Order: sequence, then structure tokens, then C-alpha cells
Amino acid sequence: MRKHILRCISCKKEFEPKPGLYYCEDCGYILGTLEVVYDYDSIQEEAVVKERNFDKKASMYQFEFLLPTKPKLTFDNDIGGTPLYKFDLFGLKDVQVKYDCSNPSSSYKDRASSIAINRALDEENDIAFCASTGNAASSLAMLNAQTEMDTYIFVPAAIPDGKRAQLEISGAKVFAIEGTYDEVYDFSLELGLKKGWYCRHAAINPYLLEGKKTGAFEIVIQNDFDVPDYVLVGVGDGTVVSSLYKGFWEFKEIGLTDKIPKIIGVQAEGISAIKEAFEKGKPYKPISIGGNTIADSISVGKPRDVIKACKYVEASDGYFISLTDEEILEAIVDLGKTTGIFAEPAGAVPYGGLKKLIYEEKITKSDTVCLVITGNGLKDVNAVQGSISRETLSFEEAMKRFEE
Amino acid sequence: MRKHILRCISCKKEFEPKPGLYYCEDCGYILGTLEVVYDYDSIQEEAVVKERNFDKKASMYQFEFLLPTKPKLTFDNDIGGTPLYKFDLFGLKDVQVKYDCSNPSSSYKDRASSIAINRALDEENDIAFCASTGNAASSLAMLNAQTEMDTYIFVPAAIPDGKRAQLEISGAKVFAIEGTYDEVYDFSLELGLKKGWYCRHAAINPYLLEGKKTGAFEIVIQNDFDVPDYVLVGVGDGTVVSSLYKGFWEFKEIGLTDKIPKIIGVQAEGISAIKEAFEKGKPYKPISIGGNTIADSISVGKPRDVIKACKYVEASDGYFISLTDEEILEAIVDLGKTTGIFAEPAGAVPYGGLKKLIYEEKITKSDTVCLVITGNGLKDVNAVQGSISRETLSFEEAMKRFEE
Repeated sequence: MRKHILRCISCKKEFEPKPGLYYCEDCGYILGTLEVVYDYDSIQEEAVVKERNFDKKASMYQFEFLLPTKPKLTFDNDIGGTPLYKFDLFGLKDVQVKYDCSNPSSSYKDRASSIAINRALDEENDIAFCASTGNAASSLAMLNAQTEMDTYIFVPAAIPDGKRAQLEISGAKVFAIEGTYDEVYDFSLELGLKKGWYCRHAAINPYLLEGKKTGAFEIVIQNDFDVPDYVLVGVGDGTVVSSLYKGFWEFKEIGLTDKIPKIIGVQAEGISAIKEAFEKGKPYKPISIGGNTIADSISVGKPRDVIKACKYVEASDGYFISLTDEEILEAIVDLGKTTGIFAEPAGAVPYGGLKKLIYEEKITKSDTVCLVITGNGLKDVNAVQGSISRETLSFEEAMKRFEE
Repeated sequence: MRKHILRCISCKKEFEPKPGLYYCEDCGYILGTLEVVYDYDSIQEEAVVKERNFDKKASMYQFEFLLPTKPKLTFDNDIGGTPLYKFDLFGLKDVQVKYDCSNPSSSYKDRASSIAINRALDEENDIAFCASTGNAASSLAMLNAQTEMDTYIFVPAAIPDGKRAQLEISGAKVFAIEGTYDEVYDFSLELGLKKGWYCRHAAINPYLLEGKKTGAFEIVIQNDFDVPDYVLVGVGDGTVVSSLYKGFWEFKEIGLTDKIPKIIGVQAEGISAIKEAFEKGKPYKPISIGGNTIADSISVGKPRDVIKACKYVEASDGYFISLTDEEILEAIVDLGKTTGIFAEPAGAVPYGGLKKLIYEEKITKSDTVCLVITGNGLKDVNAVQGSISRETLSFEEAMKRFEE
């Protein structure tokens, strides 16, 4: 666990961490998103020593020297350390796939939930809460089941049965409320902060990003410190894309690498709020739009980490692109057929994004590329029902298929 | 890769391995199941040397000195090495849970599929086939997507949509046939063997068990060689339960341990064929019964590894028990609420089995116990729909819940 301060992404005001402090009140909870800032100079020497001992399969807590809490959960020894596979795709050799589906609850979100719960334990809170349509909530519920803390999950009543099942089975108290995701989010945020519950809302709590940044650390060490040119990832609230930049930036800042990849955020064309905010240019502003996509994990009209996402992606010399739902479905199927990996819609968009950028010749054969697959396809089987054959055969028909 | 022979489980006749040889023709494909036999004396000295270098997170190919092939697949470095969690359950401290849901395709079956595909590559076969209701097939499809081989999967037309989706997305050719699992199994086995395709049918191919036994090796090394008293696992065809015994037996045979746990096979009461065959006593005989259970991964009326399963479980001083579907559903929910883990029905039966054996005082507080969780609950969300609250709230109702 590393000492740190919190700094407003907009006005740069600095704060000492304290329970209940999640954002800069002067700037409000979107403009006033906080960054966790360590004393990088003091870390630099220590990290170089540690470099020799990094383990490609160890949990994300091997990076505790750059994390704001200590591992205390049953599952902590197995969060992160996920595979980095390499495939030949679209004529590019060794396209890297960071496969975060093998985390305990089968998504990238375990990295953030673990940090959140461990911070909540540090603060001796007894309730953790979150508004989520899916992975963040199921991750919180699973990892928190072994603590004394209660888990309260606020979801729109329309959440798919499968996601509700995972939540309830993992022991969370689920409040399914008749409203949109954004309405339920705002309602529960106000309620939870007033009650003093520990907040695991995407992008409000600055510590979530600290867990997520470990994905970038792992990409570096699993590449033997040879940092890729591009990293592509799906974008909803903007926290994962921001976290990747921060991870690569921190490793550079403490002297472990000399390069930050171009970070490409891939959104759904039906609701690409952050892309829109980014393309309006500086100063980046909060945005709230309508829209929809089959990729429910990135279906966000009012992104909470929009300022960080825009600033960080710009700093990486990256940008945002978007895919139609048709392109997203095609990406799921093509990713599966070429690699074997079954990703949820939001997990497959980096693959679709790469395809698009190669077609547009923005990424070429000499580039090294890493795709971050954030969630398992089993989480949303319904999304691909339309792409699946329903054909059934009698024994006679089956036999005929194999007669010469 | 280790040199080996094949030996009939019934008549003990020995065979040199050759393509197309899956069982002893004198005894038929159930009585004549083959065992893979190594020269254990020659391994003994080597293994003791290796002991010092075992890694709790390394892939199952760290045990290549006891495996019949070499790793050649993209995914091989990440198969096995799955977590061993410890929980306090039913008054027992540190009940171990071997969590195989974090394998690439989210089930225990990856261990077997990897060995099968690597053997098929050794034999230069160009089609691998299998009849499966789920995990074995999706595992084969995923791991095989990166080879030049085609994957043919034969399934009953009634398989859950989620399982079919995973198969098709992962690039397999799926033949969904109107028949029971047993009918489809027999049809495809006859067809595939005639065609010379590589056979990944549960229990026919003796090499599948070689992959699965690595789960036992990992339980030993993750316990620092302190072998548990009991291991509980779900039983359908009988291969996983047999493989666990063989793994523990081999480590004892080569001098790495001095104990084999009592292996408890847990079946579904609605279709507990192996339990029935076991309780009829010796000589153990093939069995074929009707019946049904919600735990589709262990819904097998004509188990192919029945002889091995009975002989091996007996040799471990273990036995078989069964649970009603009601007890299985309760096990999924209780396992989730107490540990956070969401298992598929067949994955939750060891938990239900432990509960039963503690109630019957067959397992007591002084025993050390390991539960093997073989598949992720996301694979069969429908199974638990009945156990989930459907309650929805208005904002006003939600607010009232939290007023003092």
C-alpha cells in the first residue's frame, strides 16, 4: 500500500484522502473527478529493483507499491495475472489479446472491485453499494461475499435475468428499480453518499481506476517491457480507457519503460458520448446524450469519467472510434471463429475497431497492437442468438451430411 | 511428453499406442476402457528433483513428465494453474475449493481438450469430433480454433442456447440432432471412428483422463504436499472422478506424497447410474438407465467410464452419493451466498454433497476437504431462474426501504 493524495482533474486542487471524499466539490462530480497521485520520485528506485521479480501470472497485488490498499480478500491472490494471448489477425502477426475473462467473476471489473472493497475495509465501512447493469455489480457481489460487509446493488428493473441471477446468487441485496440506468445511478448515488455507504460507482470513486490500471502493468511485463504501439479497448463511462493510460504513464514515470502506447477507445455508434465530447475539442466538457447499443456494458449516455478519458487519450496521442451494432455483432463472431475466444459485445469491440483501423490504413502491418477483452461472452448469450444457427437434424439427415 | 503404454481396465491386456486405438476390442468400449501407464520407476528420481520447482500458478504442462504429449496450442500456457480458495463452511475451517471456472473456456474440460488436440496434432489428424452436452464441446471448439483442424460437435437438439452459442461462436461445426445424449453419442462415435476423425468423446479416449488428472496434481502442490482427507466432485460419465484418483495415485507412486484422499463422487438422484453400478458390487458392470436432472453436465444414463470410476473410487476408500434436484438448486444458491462463487449445477453438487455428509456425520470437523468446482454458473443461468427474486420497486418504494 502506497501513500498518496487526491487531485482534481480540472482545478488541480489537492486533497488528503478521507472517508466519503469521492470528488472535488468545487467542480462537481464529473468535472471534479479525482486522480490518485503518488510520490513517483520516491518509488522510482524501488521499482527498478522490483522489475527483476515481476511474475507474468501473479495477481495484480504484485504491484502493491503503486496501489492505495493491501490485499485482504479471499480472491485477491487470483485477480489479474490474466493471459496475454497472441494471434495472427488481419495480416498482422502476433496481435496481443489481454484476456480478462479469466478473473474470478469473468470480467476486468474484478480489478476495480477488489481495490474498492479493500479500501472500504480500511475505512471500516459495513455496506458497499453500486449502480450497475452488470459486470461491476456482479464483481462487487462475488468478491464481497466473503467479508462482513453487505453489498447493495441498484439496477434498472429491465436488467437481463442472467445478470440478475449472478448478482443474487453471489449474495448481494438487489434493488431493481423502475427507471433508466442514469436515473437509478443518480438516485442511488445520492442515497448512498447520504448514508455513508462505500461507493463503488463507476468513475465516481477514484480508486477504481487504480485497480484497473494494473491491466496496463501486466501488458508491459508480459511483453518483457517491449510496450506495444497501440492498445484498443471498449469505452462506456471512460474508466478503463483512462486506467490503461495511467498504468502505462506510471511505469514510464518511474523509469520502467520509455513509451506509452496510443490508446484507442472504441465506442458503440448508437451511443458514443465520450467520442463526441472528445471531438468537440478542448476544454473537454461533461456530456449527456440519448441512444442505445447491444453492447450493454458500454451503453452510457452520461459518462462519468469523460474528462479523464479525453485528457488521457489525447495525452497518449490516441483517439476514439465507434462501431455500429452490426459491426459489433460481426466482431463477436469473427473474433470467435479466428481465435476461439467468445467475448461479450463490449469485449469484442476492440477486435472490430482493429479491423476498421486496418481497413482505413491507420494501423499498418508494422504496428504492434494489443486488444483488451474485458468480459466473457457467457455474460450475454442473448446478444448473439441472432447469429446462431437454429438448425436441427434427424439422424438420417445427419448421416447424409457425411456420405460422399 | 512421456513414453507410455495402454492397458485394458478389465482384461489387463497391454497395447502400444497407435492412431485409432481407443479401447480394448476384446472387452468392448465400456468394459475395455484403457489406462495410460507410464514407467513410474524411471520417473521417480526425476520427479523428486522437479518437486522443488512446482509453481502454484503454472499451466498443467508443468507436469509434462507425466503427460502423453507436448503443449503446442496458443492457450496451453494458461490451462490449469487455477485457484484453490479456502472458505469456512458448515463449521469446517479452510474447506478448499478448486475453482476451475477460470480456465480459458470456463470449465475443467479444458484440461482434457488440450491433451486431446495435442495428441491429434501428433497424429496429424485434420478433424476432431465429440458428442457433448456442453463443456467438453465448447472447450474443444475454443482450444481448437487456432489449429488447422476442423471441429465437429454432435449435440442433442435440446441443449441450452448458451452452450450452443459458445460452440458456434468458437468456430465449431455443430450438428444438433433430434435424440437423447446417449443416442447422439453412439451415432457420432460410430460415424467418427469409421471416418478416422480424432475422438474427444468422454471416457472413450484414454488420454482425456491424463489431462484431467492434473487437477489432482495441483491440489497437492497448492496444499504444499499436505494431501486433503476428502475430495468431492460431480460425476456423470465418470472420467473426472477417475482422473482425480489417478492423479493422487501417480504422485504417491512416484514418491511425492504418501496418501490418497477418499474420493467422493456426487451424482444427481434423478440419474445416478455409476452410484447404482458401484452399489451392486463387484465385478463392476456397464449400466444403462433412464432418468433426468437439472444438472445437465452430469445427466448421463449410460456412463462410459463406469468401470474405472468404480474401481478407482473403491481403491481410494471412497464412495458415491446423490442429491435431489432440489438439493442441487439449494447448493448453487448457498454456495453463492457463502462464498460468492456462482457455479453451474454440476459444479455446485460437491458443496451439496459436503453438506449432506456433514449432516450424516460421515465427514467431521477434523477432516480436510476439497470441493472441485468444474463449471461456471454463467453456462446455465436458466437453471437458477426459479431461485431468483423478481421484485421491482418504484423510486418511492426504494426510498422507503432506507428510512429509519
